[in-house]
Amino acid sequence: MPGRRPPLSKDTRLCISLAARPSNIGTRFHNHLYDELGLDFIYKAFTTTDIAGAIGGVRALGIRGCSVSMPFKFDVMALVDEIEPSARVIESVNTIVNDDGRLTASNTDYLAVQALIAQHGLDPGDQVIIRGSGGMASAVAAAFAGAGFGAGTIVARNGAAGRALADRVGWDHAPEVGARRAPILVNVTPIGMAGAPQESERAFDDDAVGAADVVFDVVAMPSETPVITAARAAGAKVITGAEVIALQAAEQFERYTGVRPTAEQIAAASAISRA
Amino acid sequence: MPGRRPPLSKDTRLCISLAARPSNIGTRFHNHLYDELGLDFIYKAFTTTDIAGAIGGVRALGIRGCSVSMPFKFDVMALVDEIEPSARVIESVNTIVNDDGRLTASNTDYLAVQALIAQHGLDPGDQVIIRGSGGMASAVAAAFAGAGFGAGTIVARNGAAGRALADRVGWDHAPEVGARRAPILVNVTPIGMAGAPQESERAFDDDAVGAADVVFDVVAMPSETPVITAARAAGAKVITGAEVIALQAAEQFERYTGVRPTAEQIAAASAISRA
Repeated sequence: MPGRRPPLSKDTRLCISLAARPSNIGTRFHNHLYDELGLDFIYKAFTTTDIAGAIGGVRALGIRGCSVSMPFKFDVMALVDEIEPSARVIESVNTIVNDDGRLTASNTDYLAVQALIAQHGLDPGDQVIIRGSGGMASAVAAAFAGAGFGAGTIVARNGAAGRALADRVGWDHAPEVGARRAPILVNVTPIGMAGAPQESERAFDDDAVGAADVVFDVVAMPSETPVITAARAAGAKVITGAEVIALQAAEQFERYTGVRPTAEQIAAASAISRA
Repeated sequence: MPGRRPPLSKDTRLCISLAARPSNIGTRFHNHLYDELGLDFIYKAFTTTDIAGAIGGVRALGIRGCSVSMPFKFDVMALVDEIEPSARVIESVNTIVNDDGRLTASNTDYLAVQALIAQHGLDPGDQVIIRGSGGMASAVAAAFAGAGFGAGTIVARNGAAGRALADRVGWDHAPEVGARRAPILVNVTPIGMAGAPQESERAFDDDAVGAADVVFDVVAMPSETPVITAARAAGAKVITGAEVIALQAAEQFERYTGVRPTAEQIAAASAISRA
């Protein structure tokens, strides 16, 4: 299929990503959609050892958008002009938009989880168990708390991180799921992720899944994790990591370009970018 | 013709230009050759109001090459790690190469004129008359002086700039060509340039051209200026602006990519970039 992106010119907008170890996923995803949608943009992953200089360059060169990965998600907050609530509440930025030299930071992972809670009509009166205490777990817990979920448990073996996150959202902390049950179960650990040591394990056991109405797994590779398969079999509602990734990518894409791709376009670009 | 440049990836090298008013010429020229030669590079023109931030960004983002135009050719000298003689002698940079965060500045206009003086076998014992006192005239005069041309005249109506340039190379200054004659005549003014007020005029009159062995016109649009046409008719050797542009572009391209395009490839890319 011939591309519909115009030839590179001085007017082409550049979007970039910054990561310690860049992958090609974002570069393929965004460029595929620029081509598909005929947008005069290019996207390329960069790395840097000088995040202040890199963000200064984004501003000075008029680079339109900058996706931010580890280990820069916290440090860039000091380098932008405005931090939206989505990034401020979790102190973690994954998206910077440059409007004529004014940099606005947000977190589209948080926004995607927030949108999925609303789309799937989850009830803020329900108890939630979230497994995990890393950056993404922090975004997920904050999105639930921000949507009014007042009672829940952060399950994390890392006691310090788990307690800190639980305290931040006003929930409980536990080192293991144990006998805990809740209508909403959320996995934000690598359990079930391709290539992880616990690739073939379930984030929640049959008893917990059987007692749940909703099982939400943030793992996207694959999105059919063992716990998602078990939840489908048990008749629970499922929310997959593929939905999170598609929504956050669509949100980021729209912020950079002003164009919202369709769900089908996002799915196709996602598949191509991970091929 | 299908392009041979690989698809954009995290490993694609970016080269840019910085100018107050960017054109598309460099963007078309370099991208055409990347495609033609199958090089994993992209090139895009940028503008900035913060040259220090922009050069800081070049360094922090690992942008491989940066072409520098007005009004940044002097200011970037304070922002790089090394200034080659080609830029130092005229205090004017048009090319920055980034080797793993170490920025080296050079001036490929100077290098191109230097190469043309050698290629055409011009005799340093000959007198030279150069018309013009701007940045490019400074590069041309310095290249002649650097090649051992000890006697010449800078002809410039702008007395201060003309005298300053003449003093720098140890030549004379005159406000007009008048009755001056020399074996080598060089035009570095807009006389004869498409769109200039003196588009149809000659930089040197018939008498001066008739007395010259070599007429060198830096004007490239068109490269067949009225004075070049007159010089050909008079049987003088001619050196055109097209040669300067092709050589400086080839030099810049090689510094960025490590690949020297052929003269034919440079000519084709030049034609396409100005179409």
